[in-house]
Amino acid sequence: MTAAEEAGPQSVRVNLLFNERPVRVPYGVTLFDAASWNGIAIDSTCGGHGTCKKCRIRIADDPPVPSSLDIRAYTPQEIRDGWRLACRTAATRDTRVEVPPLTTRPKAATVGVGRQVILRPAVQKRYLELAEPSLADQASDLERVLAQLEDLEPRAELSVLTTLGRTLREADYKVTAVVVDDVLIAVEPGDTTARRFGIAFDLGTTTVVATLLDLSTGTPAGVESTLNKQQPFGADVITRISATMMDPGALDKLQNLARETLAELAQAVCAQGGVEPHEVYEVAVAGNATMTHLVLGIDPEPLGMAPFIMATRLYPEVLAADLGLGGVVHPRGRAVVFPAFGAYVGGDITAGLLASGMDRDARVRLFVDIGTNCEIVLGNREWLLATAAPAGPAFEGAAIRCGMRAADGAIEVVTMTPDDVSLKVIGDAEPQGLCGSGLVDAVTGLVRVGLLDSSGRFITEDEARVRAPGLAGRLRRIGKERVFVLHWRGPGNPAAEDSIYLSQRDVRELQFAKAAIATGWQILLEEAGLEAADVKQVLLAGSFGSYLSPASAIRIGLVPKVPVMRVVSAGNVAGEGAKMALLSLRERAGGLALLEEVRYVELSDRADFNDRFVDQLPFPPG
Amino acid sequence: MTAAEEAGPQSVRVNLLFNERPVRVPYGVTLFDAASWNGIAIDSTCGGHGTCKKCRIRIADDPPVPSSLDIRAYTPQEIRDGWRLACRTAATRDTRVEVPPLTTRPKAATVGVGRQVILRPAVQKRYLELAEPSLADQASDLERVLAQLEDLEPRAELSVLTTLGRTLREADYKVTAVVVDDVLIAVEPGDTTARRFGIAFDLGTTTVVATLLDLSTGTPAGVESTLNKQQPFGADVITRISATMMDPGALDKLQNLARETLAELAQAVCAQGGVEPHEVYEVAVAGNATMTHLVLGIDPEPLGMAPFIMATRLYPEVLAADLGLGGVVHPRGRAVVFPAFGAYVGGDITAGLLASGMDRDARVRLFVDIGTNCEIVLGNREWLLATAAPAGPAFEGAAIRCGMRAADGAIEVVTMTPDDVSLKVIGDAEPQGLCGSGLVDAVTGLVRVGLLDSSGRFITEDEARVRAPGLAGRLRRIGKERVFVLHWRGPGNPAAEDSIYLSQRDVRELQFAKAAIATGWQILLEEAGLEAADVKQVLLAGSFGSYLSPASAIRIGLVPKVPVMRVVSAGNVAGEGAKMALLSLRERAGGLALLEEVRYVELSDRADFNDRFVDQLPFPPG
Repeated sequence: MTAAEEAGPQSVRVNLLFNERPVRVPYGVTLFDAASWNGIAIDSTCGGHGTCKKCRIRIADDPPVPSSLDIRAYTPQEIRDGWRLACRTAATRDTRVEVPPLTTRPKAATVGVGRQVILRPAVQKRYLELAEPSLADQASDLERVLAQLEDLEPRAELSVLTTLGRTLREADYKVTAVVVDDVLIAVEPGDTTARRFGIAFDLGTTTVVATLLDLSTGTPAGVESTLNKQQPFGADVITRISATMMDPGALDKLQNLARETLAELAQAVCAQGGVEPHEVYEVAVAGNATMTHLVLGIDPEPLGMAPFIMATRLYPEVLAADLGLGGVVHPRGRAVVFPAFGAYVGGDITAGLLASGMDRDARVRLFVDIGTNCEIVLGNREWLLATAAPAGPAFEGAAIRCGMRAADGAIEVVTMTPDDVSLKVIGDAEPQGLCGSGLVDAVTGLVRVGLLDSSGRFITEDEARVRAPGLAGRLRRIGKERVFVLHWRGPGNPAAEDSIYLSQRDVRELQFAKAAIATGWQILLEEAGLEAADVKQVLLAGSFGSYLSPASAIRIGLVPKVPVMRVVSAGNVAGEGAKMALLSLRERAGGLALLEEVRYVELSDRADFNDRFVDQLPFPPG
Repeated sequence: MTAAEEAGPQSVRVNLLFNERPVRVPYGVTLFDAASWNGIAIDSTCGGHGTCKKCRIRIADDPPVPSSLDIRAYTPQEIRDGWRLACRTAATRDTRVEVPPLTTRPKAATVGVGRQVILRPAVQKRYLELAEPSLADQASDLERVLAQLEDLEPRAELSVLTTLGRTLREADYKVTAVVVDDVLIAVEPGDTTARRFGIAFDLGTTTVVATLLDLSTGTPAGVESTLNKQQPFGADVITRISATMMDPGALDKLQNLARETLAELAQAVCAQGGVEPHEVYEVAVAGNATMTHLVLGIDPEPLGMAPFIMATRLYPEVLAADLGLGGVVHPRGRAVVFPAFGAYVGGDITAGLLASGMDRDARVRLFVDIGTNCEIVLGNREWLLATAAPAGPAFEGAAIRCGMRAADGAIEVVTMTPDDVSLKVIGDAEPQGLCGSGLVDAVTGLVRVGLLDSSGRFITEDEARVRAPGLAGRLRRIGKERVFVLHWRGPGNPAAEDSIYLSQRDVRELQFAKAAIATGWQILLEEAGLEAADVKQVLLAGSFGSYLSPASAIRIGLVPKVPVMRVVSAGNVAGEGAKMALLSLRERAGGLALLEEVRYVELSDRADFNDRFVDQLPFPPG
């Protein structure tokens, strides 16, 4: 590992300005992904391999060094003007990006981790000009419509029939049939074939994200995120399950809060995209098992205690109305709910694996979604192993003395030398606390400069004055506990109690979390008969994992010791998987097929788990 | 035709007392059918052919002459004690009947017109004792249940999942799965396999009948009927369709009234049978196209005017809740809605054909359901032709000066000689008016004694005094119209205006009705290349047709001129068909298959209809 690699990227977030729309993305992702994840449509048909040359963008101010593919794609003048391929340009600094409007009607979309998806959405529309009935042709109204949809062989819903007669006659027998999968859900007057939309939801325990997709083009038409309204019932899934066990009314309340969260997001993205509610014919939901159970009103109690049993792995046919969206999308809109591998490897992970193509790649890859519950999947296109590790709330900022979520004022990057500490704060604001990536960075820095020994204990003040003379003054005590001050609040050198600090107990919390995770992937590697070096790529997924410094993650042993370039941020793969399910029936089937392809490894019944966990507590040698 | 045949049965209704329960049935039906139609269970496995000898009943008072099958089935002492086979004993007089309780658990039931139905209901129950989950066996709750139902391959409903976890754990993993067709609709604690019920509805324009069936035995557990609550919107389908065209709110109102009618009947039959609402897992509905459209909330307007187009022939998957029964049967109970051949040959006729086995019999048979709209089907197991004839409201008592529905006080039988008129009145009450069968009898009698000529005109008073001296005094005038007094109200010989009479215009109404019907079956006979004599059986179906005097029907040309014994009352075949659909998936499929087997002949676009209609107006020569 070179010194540069060791230091890692200077920032874990990059500010971009796409056509004057500001977005914030993990360091190093391509500008194509950065745009796509934020609802900004860029042409692409090659899956991000730089071959279709459609993903044209312009960086007018101080354009980056062109890649060899850029040089083949553009004239020298264009290169000088800042034209680049979005799929080949990484976000490594704050940048202003111009995206030309879409010129083609795409047949494919690039989503997830470089996945090219041929557009074949479940939502199909057909414009029909029907013959008027007569005494010589008394076919029923429905037969008349179905005769034109023979290749789709849909079944009709009762709701279509209630108004079909009036619609046909008022529209002069010129109508558009809306078929979702194998169901005729609507017959609309006139030709509405140009308008069909879906909403992909990433239903997280903390944050919920909705992406409105134009299903005809595969392009996003709106993205919104918000906190899950269930938050007051607890930060993690266990506290929410517990709530349903204490209070018989809590399940209803939690279900309604989840439904309200989805409904508000649906309204927001439709407003953003200029789409009428009835033009949204399908939604897809990727969430962990608890979130999925709760939003569907399924009693989650058996998920919360051994032996951790789901009501179902595969969900039955569900309508958008069953998710509380009846009034904000098409009243008979359908819903795709991602199936789960286990109580703690849920539909969000199924969606994430689909989006990252874990079952398509020949390379052995490790997928790690870091959170209170950490889901880990190892494998390639031949085999896949999955497990869940109970990491605890450290990464969410909970149980950390000065912890906070990754919001404005959170220290997200900590860079440490023996002489000084420098911080990067979200929103460039006065520091308010430490978020998960800052926590990992801080501990990594302290280990690297030697203020923490490999067991995770602060060294003595005397030793500190020798090893890191510029930092020794930051080692303090609050009561009996030793702390390291990251940031003095106010002028001068006030009491440690008022500073933003990292305590000995905080370090222990992180050690427990990373030991649980490392035990998880260690066991999977052993089950597969592999070693860390065999892992060709580590995908850091989820809202926390995506913003983690790969170098720090490696340094403290959160991920296997591989070259830092092999550790990549995969972004919000759950949401990407949900988008894929809306855009392609084939990909949707692929998501289902994953259930058969993944073997779930339960950690909680392994006799050797505790021994292995203790083995993983120390920090690896530098 | 013998004189006895010519005279016809003396009564069209017979009062029976089954185990002290009074019922009223058409003359000549078997006591087995009479019991079955009225919810009284009698053993039978042979389809009413006298071979299984299970349908034991006892007529203690004045038992009828035993049949040869009775003599083989019983000892001489039993014969003397009044034991008879219910399927071989006709209801020809008021009778007290003792029915022993069921002793066997039947595998088949006899329903409809002598149809033996092997019990294979769509509603199935399985008692399951499941292995408890463990860390070594983390199959989901649903997988655990479905593994035991592999042969049924059901899909689960979301509603099952919401409480499945709790049910399994509280019931100690001993549960009963309820599968309807291919859907798992419930998992109940403990062993409930002994309790499964369905309700068959005959949803008539005037009268609605519900039969609660024990699906394990095929036996009825309750029967109730009531007037369709839509009545205030008009007596026939056309007035109800018109209402929806005038008033945008009428469709909702009509739908709700139909739903209330069904719901009240469901509650009544459950109370009668001692059945809990959640034990009713399926309902079947046979109704004409308009009634079916209305109860499902489907706009009926296109049914009401040429070219008479249905929204659909086949109805989509429907829940009992879609019929307004969500609260009064199992909340996820399913519904079977009979498909229709045409706007005026609806699901009631599909059910009726199923019940009468029109597609199974080698003989050419004519099925006639007489009402405001008259449905006519001709054929055998090789071919079937159907049509609808607009008979008008005469048979319902409407448009007839002294007409009334067949209720207490209605003259239902009129017997006439040249000297006198004798009347039979429903409920043995003072006559209030004339119902359909009385109307047909009265006109038949007047034709027979010669007071009406073959053109349907009353002969002169002078001629009357010669031909029927005892009746001539009843020929009067009210204003300019000639009338025949059937019953003088009060003592003496008061004004004709105050009597119950038949007017010249009433005779014309009946002529128009019978001409429309006769034109219908004439055209079907011609389409088939047959003559009246080729018809081996005429089935008079529906609430009016069943009570019509066969001899009178033949005499005035309402049915083809065949020996009177060939004309039989088929009873409420629509309701019987609905029962069959609940008892047997195979019969249900047979009902669907009828849609392909029946060819619909539209009368209203035939250029020769009016000529033929005029040809049928006269009464045939005696």
